[in-house]
Amino acid sequence: MKTVYSDDHRLHAAKVELIDGTLKPAHEKPVRADIILSRVNEVGLGEVVEPEDFGIEPLGRIHDSRYLIFLETAWAMWQKTGRDWDALPLAWPVRGMRAIEPDEIDGKLSYFSFDAGAPITSGTWPAVRASANVGLTATRMVKDGERAAFGLCRPPGHHAAVDYCGGYCFLNNAAIAAQWLRDHGCDRVSVLDIDYHHGNGTQSIFYERADVQFLSLHADPRQEYPYFLGYSDEIGHGKGEGFNVNYPMEWGTGFEAWGQALSDACNEISYFGPDVVVVSLGVDTFEKDPISQFKLKSPDFLEIGRRIASLKRPTVFLMEGGYAVEEIGVNAVNVLTGFENAG
Amino acid sequence: MKTVYSDDHRLHAAKVELIDGTLKPAHEKPVRADIILSRVNEVGLGEVVEPEDFGIEPLGRIHDSRYLIFLETAWAMWQKTGRDWDALPLAWPVRGMRAIEPDEIDGKLSYFSFDAGAPITSGTWPAVRASANVGLTATRMVKDGERAAFGLCRPPGHHAAVDYCGGYCFLNNAAIAAQWLRDHGCDRVSVLDIDYHHGNGTQSIFYERADVQFLSLHADPRQEYPYFLGYSDEIGHGKGEGFNVNYPMEWGTGFEAWGQALSDACNEISYFGPDVVVVSLGVDTFEKDPISQFKLKSPDFLEIGRRIASLKRPTVFLMEGGYAVEEIGVNAVNVLTGFENAG
Repeated sequence: MKTVYSDDHRLHAAKVELIDGTLKPAHEKPVRADIILSRVNEVGLGEVVEPEDFGIEPLGRIHDSRYLIFLETAWAMWQKTGRDWDALPLAWPVRGMRAIEPDEIDGKLSYFSFDAGAPITSGTWPAVRASANVGLTATRMVKDGERAAFGLCRPPGHHAAVDYCGGYCFLNNAAIAAQWLRDHGCDRVSVLDIDYHHGNGTQSIFYERADVQFLSLHADPRQEYPYFLGYSDEIGHGKGEGFNVNYPMEWGTGFEAWGQALSDACNEISYFGPDVVVVSLGVDTFEKDPISQFKLKSPDFLEIGRRIASLKRPTVFLMEGGYAVEEIGVNAVNVLTGFENAG
Repeated sequence: MKTVYSDDHRLHAAKVELIDGTLKPAHEKPVRADIILSRVNEVGLGEVVEPEDFGIEPLGRIHDSRYLIFLETAWAMWQKTGRDWDALPLAWPVRGMRAIEPDEIDGKLSYFSFDAGAPITSGTWPAVRASANVGLTATRMVKDGERAAFGLCRPPGHHAAVDYCGGYCFLNNAAIAAQWLRDHGCDRVSVLDIDYHHGNGTQSIFYERADVQFLSLHADPRQEYPYFLGYSDEIGHGKGEGFNVNYPMEWGTGFEAWGQALSDACNEISYFGPDVVVVSLGVDTFEKDPISQFKLKSPDFLEIGRRIASLKRPTVFLMEGGYAVEEIGVNAVNVLTGFENAG
């Protein structure tokens, strides 16, 4: 399996995130990608290639154009106010508030986000563009006939919605990839999100659509971030009814229960019959993850890869979360080698 | 004019707030009330009295019972997780997200807030109870025949809505006071909010009601916090249509333009003919306020008091914002002496 990787991920290196009642050093940091790439090379997964540039058009197929303009211009606006540290929002349009984009940068940051966990830095825009291109390049490989490809996306994407960022995510790489497949001859695409956190962004993007199935295995929103989406009764709406499948699981879940949910999700995917499966690959389900409460062990990730392979569908793996930095390489690449070896 | 004051405000002393892309020492701090109280005594405004306890019932007339339970229990839940610093949320239910109260404390903090500017501390609940009692005691004095009274409320209240806190505010003291007046024989109450920031909480509470008129003079939400309410086209809804009046003004506004808006608001109040006027008294319109961009000078606050007196209505002044600590006493008390001397 080829890996697509760009050094441009380094351009986004947020210093902090709001979590645990304070600003902590960002868990989502460049070394994550470095360690995964090392492991890819160590196990000889396959060639590592640079992404191609797909331009802005595929991003605009998913994201609101005002949101894209915001992402591109936010740092310059922030800097113009004399601030040289990470740009963070300070208030959010919750229930009863209006959906009007303010003129000033602090208001725009607030409008286009749902937390203070996606700081905008000087290099955020080129980094997220590169991350989307990484995802799209891997996706095109699969469209062009590869059995599978790995997009080593960083920053991740699954919390990003049509017009807001959050949870380390700015552009929804998996959604952009799925839409690109739809726009290039695929009738049906499944997005299987196995990150510890619910893929609220991806769900919201495809919630009313029957052509992109979304399935997410994640910590129960009653207990865990992002809290306000991810319940099992969210089954899609309108034409999309039945094409959104959530598997919320409680803190402490180990591979036995998690694996049963995965098997169920795989059955749903088989029934749907997608042309391509896009996997939002988070490995923060790992027992030692610093911000998560599931109990998966490193060998479990091999089994995850095997089960996904059993779908016998062209498969794009796109990197999402995973913050146990020492083991992130082993765990992420275990999924990929598990898949490869089941071939 | 009598002042109602409780030392219990000190029980809430937040260490930080999320603003300007970082956690800064909280602008809303106990010394604010100390300096106002000193000035009250210095000018001999009148007797300073302790609040009476009105119990929980008047709070439940405005706030959701689950929100009140949250405020009462949040610190204990937070502490139970081993954390002894200020409790802050980390994600917010923005557009498209669900209104479900999570089970865990980090989720509850996120659900019941709209920013990370209202930290919950060990003493927040008794402090906000005392602040509401301060407001209610001043309100009863006026109901019982005083021409005016000053509730030296701290923490402030006008950003707090039916079920969320934010912007240093937890219980909406002005709304609780207005409702108490309605429940005790007043047919019509006006809430005049002259804080620099829009009183989004108060507006949202009374937005569909014709018995409580809400008028707010504030910085334009296109430029300024709270960003997502406070536009001039927000005129109330349903039975409340025409009973909500916003005067958004741009950064740099001085007393000439601000005073014209106040005159207009006073005309609206006269036309409405309330039994009592509740003034949400913020003095962060002051030119030296550290987080605000209006240009009012200290003598302007005397004139504000005179104009409010010209309404010739029983008037309750309840303290809201103002962060230029050195001058906060002079400015707040100038409004009150301006009112008194116009008597």
